[in-house]
Amino acid sequence: MKLMVVGGAGYIGSHTVRQLRAAGHSVVVFDNLSSGHAQALPEGVTLVQADLLDAASVKAALEAHQPDAVVHFAALIEVGESMRAPGRYYRNNVVGSLNLLQSVVETRKIPLVFSSTAAVYGTTDAVPIPEDAPMHPESVYGETKLMTENMIHAFHVAHGLPYIILRYFNVSGAAPGGDIGEAHPNKTHLIELACLTALGQREKMMIFGEDYPTPDGTCIRDYIHVQDLADAHVLAVEALASGRQEAGTYNVGLGHGFSVREVLDAVDAVTGRPLTREIAPRRAGDPPRLVADAHRIVQELGFNPQFTDLKEIVRTAWEWHRSHPHGFDQ
Amino acid sequence: MKLMVVGGAGYIGSHTVRQLRAAGHSVVVFDNLSSGHAQALPEGVTLVQADLLDAASVKAALEAHQPDAVVHFAALIEVGESMRAPGRYYRNNVVGSLNLLQSVVETRKIPLVFSSTAAVYGTTDAVPIPEDAPMHPESVYGETKLMTENMIHAFHVAHGLPYIILRYFNVSGAAPGGDIGEAHPNKTHLIELACLTALGQREKMMIFGEDYPTPDGTCIRDYIHVQDLADAHVLAVEALASGRQEAGTYNVGLGHGFSVREVLDAVDAVTGRPLTREIAPRRAGDPPRLVADAHRIVQELGFNPQFTDLKEIVRTAWEWHRSHPHGFDQ
Repeated sequence: MKLMVVGGAGYIGSHTVRQLRAAGHSVVVFDNLSSGHAQALPEGVTLVQADLLDAASVKAALEAHQPDAVVHFAALIEVGESMRAPGRYYRNNVVGSLNLLQSVVETRKIPLVFSSTAAVYGTTDAVPIPEDAPMHPESVYGETKLMTENMIHAFHVAHGLPYIILRYFNVSGAAPGGDIGEAHPNKTHLIELACLTALGQREKMMIFGEDYPTPDGTCIRDYIHVQDLADAHVLAVEALASGRQEAGTYNVGLGHGFSVREVLDAVDAVTGRPLTREIAPRRAGDPPRLVADAHRIVQELGFNPQFTDLKEIVRTAWEWHRSHPHGFDQ
Repeated sequence: MKLMVVGGAGYIGSHTVRQLRAAGHSVVVFDNLSSGHAQALPEGVTLVQADLLDAASVKAALEAHQPDAVVHFAALIEVGESMRAPGRYYRNNVVGSLNLLQSVVETRKIPLVFSSTAAVYGTTDAVPIPEDAPMHPESVYGETKLMTENMIHAFHVAHGLPYIILRYFNVSGAAPGGDIGEAHPNKTHLIELACLTALGQREKMMIFGEDYPTPDGTCIRDYIHVQDLADAHVLAVEALASGRQEAGTYNVGLGHGFSVREVLDAVDAVTGRPLTREIAPRRAGDPPRLVADAHRIVQELGFNPQFTDLKEIVRTAWEWHRSHPHGFDQ
């Protein structure tokens, strides 16, 4: 198959491009490179450098490349920034997605796989969180993802657009080999921050709250390895293309979590460079546990994550950061 | 004060323009006239004929006219059409509103009054429905209104935009005098349909379901007179401009409802032309009762609806339709 991967030069996008090619598919990437990296793309992948907000260029790319399906990652993803600049987030994430949806139904009506997030659930007491849990996103970022989910569903009902929505929990790690990995303009992810701290780029690691009702008092999150997540996209594309699935929404996580302390301990063990840790108060809106109920994707798409050991996950991240201490810019 | 009324040439917009002027304010209308009517505007009102999807024209109008507040009605409003053409609805209602919001915060950061709907609640068992009821809109139309409410709230949090959101129940009637009234391209509202049927433009009135758990078996809805609703906008604008309110969301209804049979009986009595009625099965998604809990707007904004008698409401509608059997096009 030929896939168009929108936002394919980003962290999860570039890993998905790699796994799609490993599965024998060809790939065209559509990316504005606002936060993605052309260097993250393997040779043989066509890059259309353009913006979803330019509706004509989306349509032109679909017509020029005639893909069999679209995988859509393109979005601004910072929770804090989304609260300070909501207009940018609504514009980029919602209007951009609307342009893509309209172009798809007007040109080829091919299946779409959409990159969503556990942030659509908001703070919840459900542990683990099933896909039908109430959705009350607490950030503009999460809201833009929920709006886009709703738009996709409406296009399915009105126009028969086949789709799979994947709601990611905490994405982590890097492809083994260390040549691609996480390189966001702003760093907010725990394992990335810990690796950069181990490299001496930051002074210490903050632990926000050690008085949560969890075994060691720190928050628990479900860390899904980026290569496993990329494989989930391959499964989704293939299920849609074969007609086995017409529409579905799936959590992507391991179904169990690790605490902040467990993660930092794993980083210490993998790097051999114990991190300085500082305890700080809880942050508003951080629930004690966010863990996926991941049964549906296992049962319906045959998802079978390979990276279930925390140290293995950390080892792949460390391999990337140590060999690319400044990401792709070195 | 000087108000910019976006969508001011439509049914509710034009009544609000009139009430704003009656309260001593001056008005500029911004309307693309896609479903509004320039004839619905009184002399002395400036009409900017332009589209919210043209962001530059919104900004230019705000800069040229320097209003003290904006009242935003512009939207596509047909539930059924919204399910068949979701892209048009997301584009017009959500992207259009986003353009307006961004223009407002970038130019003048003036208060905004937004036209929302009871459709944001979806089917609910709550009778009456309070403003904090769960929101699960069941149509794309309702969803676009909820999305816009959420965007407005985010702009308030991020940029201090003062706002009042008004959620309308069933809007009905016309300004006494019969010179402006309902003239939608497609007719879906019960009282309008009944008046046009009494005029012989339609054969009969359908009653969808007479086996609902209500006293006469037909659905009950909360009919708010359009002139009362217009006054609610005047109160909202004045509360924001005076600084008494910074942000609020209010149902606008009478707080009690009338059944389909009661409405048709009132039309028969007012017109003296008994309608042919036909019983049909229930329609999917029609709950037995939709009635506003209207206490909040009474208490906080001093709302005091004048049209509480069903026959009076129907009389004003009949006055308009009888004198304008083809709306503004005669």
